[in-house]
Amino acid sequence: MINFRIIFKILGFLLIVEGVSMLIATGVSALYRDYDTMPLLYSSLINMGIGTITILLTKNARKDIGKHEGFIIVSLVWVVFSLFGCIPYITSGAIPSFTDAFFETISGFTTTGSSVLNDIEALPHGLLFWRSMTQWLGGMGIIVLSLAILPVFGIGGMQLFAAEVPSPTPDKLNPKIQQTAKNLWGIYVLFTLAETLLLWVGGMSFFDAINHSFTTMATGGYSTKQASIAEWSSPFIQYVIIFFMFLAGTNFSLSYFAITRKYDKVVKNEEFKYYILFIVGFTAIIFSGLLITTNLGFEQAFRDTLFQVVSIITTTGYATADYLTWAPFLTILIFALFFFGGSAGSTGGGIKIMRIVLLMKNSYYELRRLLHPHAVIPVRFNKRAVNDQVITNVLAFFMIYLIIFFISTILFTLIEPDLESAMGAVASCLGNIGPGLGNVGPAENFYHVHPLGKWFLSFLMLIGRLELFTVLVLFSPAFWKK
Amino acid sequence: MINFRIIFKILGFLLIVEGVSMLIATGVSALYRDYDTMPLLYSSLINMGIGTITILLTKNARKDIGKHEGFIIVSLVWVVFSLFGCIPYITSGAIPSFTDAFFETISGFTTTGSSVLNDIEALPHGLLFWRSMTQWLGGMGIIVLSLAILPVFGIGGMQLFAAEVPSPTPDKLNPKIQQTAKNLWGIYVLFTLAETLLLWVGGMSFFDAINHSFTTMATGGYSTKQASIAEWSSPFIQYVIIFFMFLAGTNFSLSYFAITRKYDKVVKNEEFKYYILFIVGFTAIIFSGLLITTNLGFEQAFRDTLFQVVSIITTTGYATADYLTWAPFLTILIFALFFFGGSAGSTGGGIKIMRIVLLMKNSYYELRRLLHPHAVIPVRFNKRAVNDQVITNVLAFFMIYLIIFFISTILFTLIEPDLESAMGAVASCLGNIGPGLGNVGPAENFYHVHPLGKWFLSFLMLIGRLELFTVLVLFSPAFWKK
Repeated sequence: MINFRIIFKILGFLLIVEGVSMLIATGVSALYRDYDTMPLLYSSLINMGIGTITILLTKNARKDIGKHEGFIIVSLVWVVFSLFGCIPYITSGAIPSFTDAFFETISGFTTTGSSVLNDIEALPHGLLFWRSMTQWLGGMGIIVLSLAILPVFGIGGMQLFAAEVPSPTPDKLNPKIQQTAKNLWGIYVLFTLAETLLLWVGGMSFFDAINHSFTTMATGGYSTKQASIAEWSSPFIQYVIIFFMFLAGTNFSLSYFAITRKYDKVVKNEEFKYYILFIVGFTAIIFSGLLITTNLGFEQAFRDTLFQVVSIITTTGYATADYLTWAPFLTILIFALFFFGGSAGSTGGGIKIMRIVLLMKNSYYELRRLLHPHAVIPVRFNKRAVNDQVITNVLAFFMIYLIIFFISTILFTLIEPDLESAMGAVASCLGNIGPGLGNVGPAENFYHVHPLGKWFLSFLMLIGRLELFTVLVLFSPAFWKK
Repeated sequence: MINFRIIFKILGFLLIVEGVSMLIATGVSALYRDYDTMPLLYSSLINMGIGTITILLTKNARKDIGKHEGFIIVSLVWVVFSLFGCIPYITSGAIPSFTDAFFETISGFTTTGSSVLNDIEALPHGLLFWRSMTQWLGGMGIIVLSLAILPVFGIGGMQLFAAEVPSPTPDKLNPKIQQTAKNLWGIYVLFTLAETLLLWVGGMSFFDAINHSFTTMATGGYSTKQASIAEWSSPFIQYVIIFFMFLAGTNFSLSYFAITRKYDKVVKNEEFKYYILFIVGFTAIIFSGLLITTNLGFEQAFRDTLFQVVSIITTTGYATADYLTWAPFLTILIFALFFFGGSAGSTGGGIKIMRIVLLMKNSYYELRRLLHPHAVIPVRFNKRAVNDQVITNVLAFFMIYLIIFFISTILFTLIEPDLESAMGAVASCLGNIGPGLGNVGPAENFYHVHPLGKWFLSFLMLIGRLELFTVLVLFSPAFWKK
């Protein structure tokens, strides 16, 4: 029997956390004396109230949380957060449609960054802050989930990459989760503060600086400006953001090692090497392409390229240039990056560097196996032989990712007949990126998408964020048996 | 040391076979008293002459053929056949450009069916016949290769699917290959004759009937008419062609079982079931779509759908309707079929039903493994557990297929800036289909593609036809070591 009471209890507790976060946004709103103060306050109270009631009603829940409960909680929390998190948008009248408000909120919590807003600057400060905060919370949630909680439960494909996390011993479970989570939390906050400071020094207002730090560290990509980062032409600001997007796209365990001076663990990490290699490779090609096909200056072309490459590979989705206006060959290279994604254990979404590398290695090794069919030739990663089960899991992940991409694109053309736009919207939401191609490109937004399409894309954001299996397993009959 | 002498000797022998085939086309030409009789005759003599000289020069070759020699011969024979097979097009002046003539010929031998001809009807009978014959020979070559020769050598991924072929015992090697090849050859000829007869009875000229039988059984798709099968509005003719395309897309071993009355082996075959399932599924959806979005009559809509679905899934590429004029959703469903392909051991290209099914099963099983991480849950096919190695091989194949598709599409946009056209051209040639999307759709052809693009697509046809590994292994350094 699945322990539903504990599920509700935990969700109730998390709702209180959401309510408290909203209270902070309420404070920001009060500071600016905007019209959204009361709507935010009421929403916060609703969150905390319903959270408290839920906890009271589930007081006598059994404490045992197994794998099944874990899957359900993880999938539900993003949905519940979005349902309750969109209340202030609606009640303040800033985003009156429930569909739009929900889309904007789940796009926040999943750190996707696709927006329905046609005039971001018209939003009051409290809501803008809440909007950035949904991403920051979502980003923190996914790190703690993927590096601290899930590995202990042995859930999902994510634990495959968490080799650095000590394996669980039942009696020490809680302290270990807490310590790991605390360390990660510390780094996340530290980086956010550092970026805020640098952006402020660089000339952003303090409000814009903290908002963008929130959405950079989450690789979310929400901006307080309609023009996104293109609003600030300062190279300093743009390079600072590039640097922190890059950091946010690396495994946070590596940052922890770097801070605790275990540099060798960073240097030896193969995923990190390939992450840099892919960024350098794509930047080099696109940069050359821009130099040939446009009149941009050397530095500008370099910065535009590097910014867009890092923004897309980390699945942040900020823009300083519209890659749809580039030569088709360069646009498509950017689109190829939609299928990479950040490192495992980062806030980035997508397929992830580790999986891409394992897939490429396995393909290359298969050629060798062809010549020596009787030799055992395992794929090696970080100098260790990779278990066959890991390979099969990664391959299944990739296959399911592509099937979902293809079927979703096909279905989406029922709503959006232009193939490029459909592919872009689906790939962007599934990979938690933000902008897409065609009429959902960096200079556009998702406002005009049919409501059905918005719900569909919201679902894609969710399964993309939770690495497919975690959500999909809920739809398998085997899950509900016994 | 690789035994190059035996490689040349075998290629020499095969050149003589090509020359003899060309002699038959010469006979057809003479019958119609067309201007291409002498060019065909000379080309035939060149083939036979060079073949004979090569054999004489390699008289003292050692007889041992290993895996390495096998890979080289298989990859080279398609190239050599195309190089020598395009001579009559050039010398007759029908296709004066070497690039175009080579493209048309390799598109024939690989049974792709992409054409550079703007006015097919202008071609004299001998050349038309030779053009259809390149496909017929290519189709027969691939069956004998995949079901009789490669399994014995243990080459390629193809042997994975050849469970029905007796495993090799060195001393009986030659008789077994010969017997299997003979049986397959017999079925291939039988089906070709049967289709010719039916098409002739249905109202085609005998010349058109035999040409189309050649290109149907090869799942090649070359037609003697610019309008392809749309030239014949007769439902009977179209249904006959649908039936034989369907047959050509099944494993020829199954046809052998059916003819020898081992029906249970056919009925129990899982790939065959899924092959039918996919055809029925896609037909049902697209048929409904056509009924809703067009004014076509019931039977016409059904026939148009079934024809296009079977033509694309078997990678034949004939057209009776232009799927690019359908609703975008339906066009994209057809494009999805580009990534299916015929059954293993058929003349069809593409990824193949067996692989698609194994990939889907493995993905589904991964969800179950997630819930029971310590249980061993192998994928089952034809009621037997599938070896892990087979799964890894299939997954590597799929991954490489997609990488090639993506990288080639990106590169192709340098030549053809329209993304849809680029995707269509690449997917079509890699899958040995024929028509693509955009400006290489069923109503268009490949004439306008830049020469560089034609060479690039020719290479894709080759690696697609030989199931990637067979060709790619030649590019791996490990192959040439020792």
